[in-house]
Amino acid sequence: MRVIVINTGTEILLGDVLNTHLAFIAREIFQFGLRINEQRTIPDGDTIQSALADVSLRAEIVFVTGGLGPTSDDITREIVAGYLQLPLVEDAIVREGIRSRLAARRIPTTKRIWRQALVPAGADVLPNENGTAPGLYLPANINPGVPSPHLFLLPGPPRELQPMFRNFVAPVLGRITTGSKKAAMRTFRIANMGESIIEKKIGDLVLAIQGVELGYCARPGEVEVRVIGSATAVAQAEEIIREKLGNAIFSASDETLAAVLVRLLSQPEQTLALAESCTGGFLADQITNVPGASKVFVAGYVTYSNQEKIRTLGVSR
Amino acid sequence: MRVIVINTGTEILLGDVLNTHLAFIAREIFQFGLRINEQRTIPDGDTIQSALADVSLRAEIVFVTGGLGPTSDDITREIVAGYLQLPLVEDAIVREGIRSRLAARRIPTTKRIWRQALVPAGADVLPNENGTAPGLYLPANINPGVPSPHLFLLPGPPRELQPMFRNFVAPVLGRITTGSKKAAMRTFRIANMGESIIEKKIGDLVLAIQGVELGYCARPGEVEVRVIGSATAVAQAEEIIREKLGNAIFSASDETLAAVLVRLLSQPEQTLALAESCTGGFLADQITNVPGASKVFVAGYVTYSNQEKIRTLGVSR
Repeated sequence: MRVIVINTGTEILLGDVLNTHLAFIAREIFQFGLRINEQRTIPDGDTIQSALADVSLRAEIVFVTGGLGPTSDDITREIVAGYLQLPLVEDAIVREGIRSRLAARRIPTTKRIWRQALVPAGADVLPNENGTAPGLYLPANINPGVPSPHLFLLPGPPRELQPMFRNFVAPVLGRITTGSKKAAMRTFRIANMGESIIEKKIGDLVLAIQGVELGYCARPGEVEVRVIGSATAVAQAEEIIREKLGNAIFSASDETLAAVLVRLLSQPEQTLALAESCTGGFLADQITNVPGASKVFVAGYVTYSNQEKIRTLGVSR
Repeated sequence: MRVIVINTGTEILLGDVLNTHLAFIAREIFQFGLRINEQRTIPDGDTIQSALADVSLRAEIVFVTGGLGPTSDDITREIVAGYLQLPLVEDAIVREGIRSRLAARRIPTTKRIWRQALVPAGADVLPNENGTAPGLYLPANINPGVPSPHLFLLPGPPRELQPMFRNFVAPVLGRITTGSKKAAMRTFRIANMGESIIEKKIGDLVLAIQGVELGYCARPGEVEVRVIGSATAVAQAEEIIREKLGNAIFSASDETLAAVLVRLLSQPEQTLALAESCTGGFLADQITNVPGASKVFVAGYVTYSNQEKIRTLGVSR
């Protein structure tokens, strides 16, 4: 199934906000054997109409983010309903949810607020646990007269979109991709070894496995190695990678280097103190961002001036 | 003039890399009165052909990023030349630049490397001071038989694209936008005041000015207020904003809060020491990221445990 993501948002096109939805959705849908084939960012407003017409026949699944809120520029819901020739019907449960959410926060309701309770006839509501605007799922060809892909309309703020995606979009994706072939993926995070050295050690060996896709991604302080393929092929690749890279692999999950350090130190109840100079508090910041770091981390000294190195750390002159 | 950005990159669509080109280009082109009307991300490979055909008649300026390198997936140059029916001609200066760059780094040349010296006939070379693949500028309707927009082909790595853009793309944009109306923009960065309070203080007053566009962008620890319009309108807006928000504005440029602090402290040669608890080194990290911080910043103590607060800071039990 082909997937297209349409992000609406003038603030993205003006360069004020980085688009994080694309990376989030890409990683979430992979487990269903899906990849994003194309992504577009368009301004708030009615450009969504032509974008929708353009992509409808080129994808089986389309995600649209943004434009579901209460302001005058938020017209994704209305445009989609118009395009698919579906009437908008007020959903009593959504309306009550909006009312009680705003009442609890003592926010006065305005007339525009209630537009968020409108649902295109036949669409499923995707509850929003962190905001007023629900998401909407419109199954493929919801109006048999207008050919359309599976259409997910999602709210713009990441803190609303992300839990909604995991809790309510993922189960739908599981259903509509049932029986389709799913690739396995495994990522390895590596420290203390450069990309070209890693490639030299594992590249040819891994690529000799039938049907394996191999990717590298260098980030400050680490390299991520990614293998995609059948479960058997990925297992074969993992064996090679573990043998060749050994201890340089600090994680085969999403754990950061700092999180691994905190975990290893906390098992035998050891503690950590840091003295930093050039890194200027960066290490302490990374460590203290890990949940549970307080059990391990005692103190950090950012001794930036020479005088401080002598005074606090006892460095000889 | 309408602007479309096409980013090629399978790694962006897989969620491995955030697309930072969009925000960079958006901010750079604003001074020429240009805004991005639409942006697309497409996979590496020949999808660029249909994307190009699709956008060619809907924009006067198109930026394409990525796909100029030496690997087999890097085919932007070849596809564009094919689409515009232009022969590819080897550029002797580019070839010599690649040769000397690789020789200086003792990197052996492979046959594929020289593809990067090919230039569609009539295109201008945009020198790459940080890599081997040059950018290319193809003026509008470069082949009179195939209608085409102004086309800029730019390398994928940000550290190559960004200096190339500022040094070689910007002058071309200045030339092709000569005489077009340019809007003024001014941004104000505000600390210690929430978005809704700011909107209440300035919203109605600023929007009462003819032809002003007003935007807010909340980021951790600060709010950015942006006004766009004619020079006169923006000046009027600035007067209101400065009067109403006063000292809460810490910058009307791109200076960070930490940079402002370091600048203010260094003028009368004052110094700064930090004691942090929950922030865990974040403040020290922010401060020491500012060039020249060593003149001001003496030391930071990340006293995370209670014991350390008592021992180092003399906090009473």
